[in-house]
Amino acid sequence: MAVELYNDGNHICLAFYDLVDELSDHAVQSNQFLIVDAGHGALIDPGGNMTHNGLLMGMQRWLNSRNLDYILASHADPDIIGSLNKWMVTTHCQVLISRLWTRFLPHFTSGRDYSERIVGIPDQGMLVPLGECKIKAVPAHFMHSEGNFQFYDPVSKILFSGDMGTSLIDHAQAAQPVTDFDAHVDFMAPFHKRYMVANKICRFWVRMVRELDVEMIVPQHGARFEGKAMVNRFLDWIENLPCGIDLMVQDNYRAP
Amino acid sequence: MAVELYNDGNHICLAFYDLVDELSDHAVQSNQFLIVDAGHGALIDPGGNMTHNGLLMGMQRWLNSRNLDYILASHADPDIIGSLNKWMVTTHCQVLISRLWTRFLPHFTSGRDYSERIVGIPDQGMLVPLGECKIKAVPAHFMHSEGNFQFYDPVSKILFSGDMGTSLIDHAQAAQPVTDFDAHVDFMAPFHKRYMVANKICRFWVRMVRELDVEMIVPQHGARFEGKAMVNRFLDWIENLPCGIDLMVQDNYRAP
Repeated sequence: MAVELYNDGNHICLAFYDLVDELSDHAVQSNQFLIVDAGHGALIDPGGNMTHNGLLMGMQRWLNSRNLDYILASHADPDIIGSLNKWMVTTHCQVLISRLWTRFLPHFTSGRDYSERIVGIPDQGMLVPLGECKIKAVPAHFMHSEGNFQFYDPVSKILFSGDMGTSLIDHAQAAQPVTDFDAHVDFMAPFHKRYMVANKICRFWVRMVRELDVEMIVPQHGARFEGKAMVNRFLDWIENLPCGIDLMVQDNYRAP
Repeated sequence: MAVELYNDGNHICLAFYDLVDELSDHAVQSNQFLIVDAGHGALIDPGGNMTHNGLLMGMQRWLNSRNLDYILASHADPDIIGSLNKWMVTTHCQVLISRLWTRFLPHFTSGRDYSERIVGIPDQGMLVPLGECKIKAVPAHFMHSEGNFQFYDPVSKILFSGDMGTSLIDHAQAAQPVTDFDAHVDFMAPFHKRYMVANKICRFWVRMVRELDVEMIVPQHGARFEGKAMVNRFLDWIENLPCGIDLMVQDNYRAP
């Protein structure tokens, strides 16, 4: 079942938390998102092959897939966009992704040339017109991917934060907002320390996010942060976390 | 046509340079590799959907695909392992990849559970028994992927270096070894500055590689470095290159 993160009748934000069964699929739990504005839709990080059919069917209640204008991809990992070939075949949407990855996406597809439907987002980000609103693709490079974007919706004030804010929990827990931040840290810390590239970059990101009007941070794995107080708890935490190369030493680079 | 990088009758290293037509496929040029030892084989970074059929057919002259023991994946990008589902269906091999990515690979597959054939390489690397030899999976984390391995073959003394040493050139040029290092830098520098994560990490890697007996560095995109003199030219260059987060400032993180 999709969770309605926002719905004012004209503008709707949906999260799909249960399309990956992390136990029987042996795959990392992941969330998929749909924004609908004035009858036009954008999927954010629609996921791998196992989520395509469920998402295509599940979204029809809110959007006819003929009106799917975009797939917005934070980066090019399999859990983000592994289903690309299926979406190219079953819809007419464009896919927007960092310019660093546009020439890697054809390695996902087969049989046809879809390059005219693959649009590169420049490093500084861009505004994406959707229905009557404009979604902001905001830079999130090296968190974790080298060419990485998050998507800020100025209507709902939701920041779809990709891997930033990930917690590794099951899909039932993931569908609930975080209520106890201190207890939640245990589910976030190992991932952020190893998959986020450096604290320097986290701090750049936090300063950018503090200048946006963010009511909710919704990551692609695990649970969301609702309300400005909880958003700030997360920003304060990640701003001070050593991670990635900060923790690497020569001993991590020895031939076995 | 495959290029024989090494062949002593029992141990063979092959490179496939022409399975991606970077012009008509609109995809980044990429190389695929096959190591055969005593009749057993391992593919390194077999690539996306467009390379599967050509590689499966092309390798038969040297190896019956029933004897393909492994796919060795440097990381989980589509140009590395986008064809995973096809290899799972058409062969019996295991796929070895960083433990960071084992639970992401099922997002590439569909229809069946292949988790028992997906083996995680621990962060410190491992020895991979192949025929009568042992291939070394050596740590290359953050170059570029957070969980990243290169594969060193102690028989041929070849280091299959994944994205490290990449040059963005066409497939005909890629099949030739580098002869003029200074001229070659122009084809490498933009990629390494943006896709490699930090000079700190490059330096750790260079120190590790200098302790191995490397006769050839063979990257997954572009041309190879043959002979210790040319290998050292590359090591000297990358050791001193600021890259990735070294070059990022707050202005790279501004909402549009």
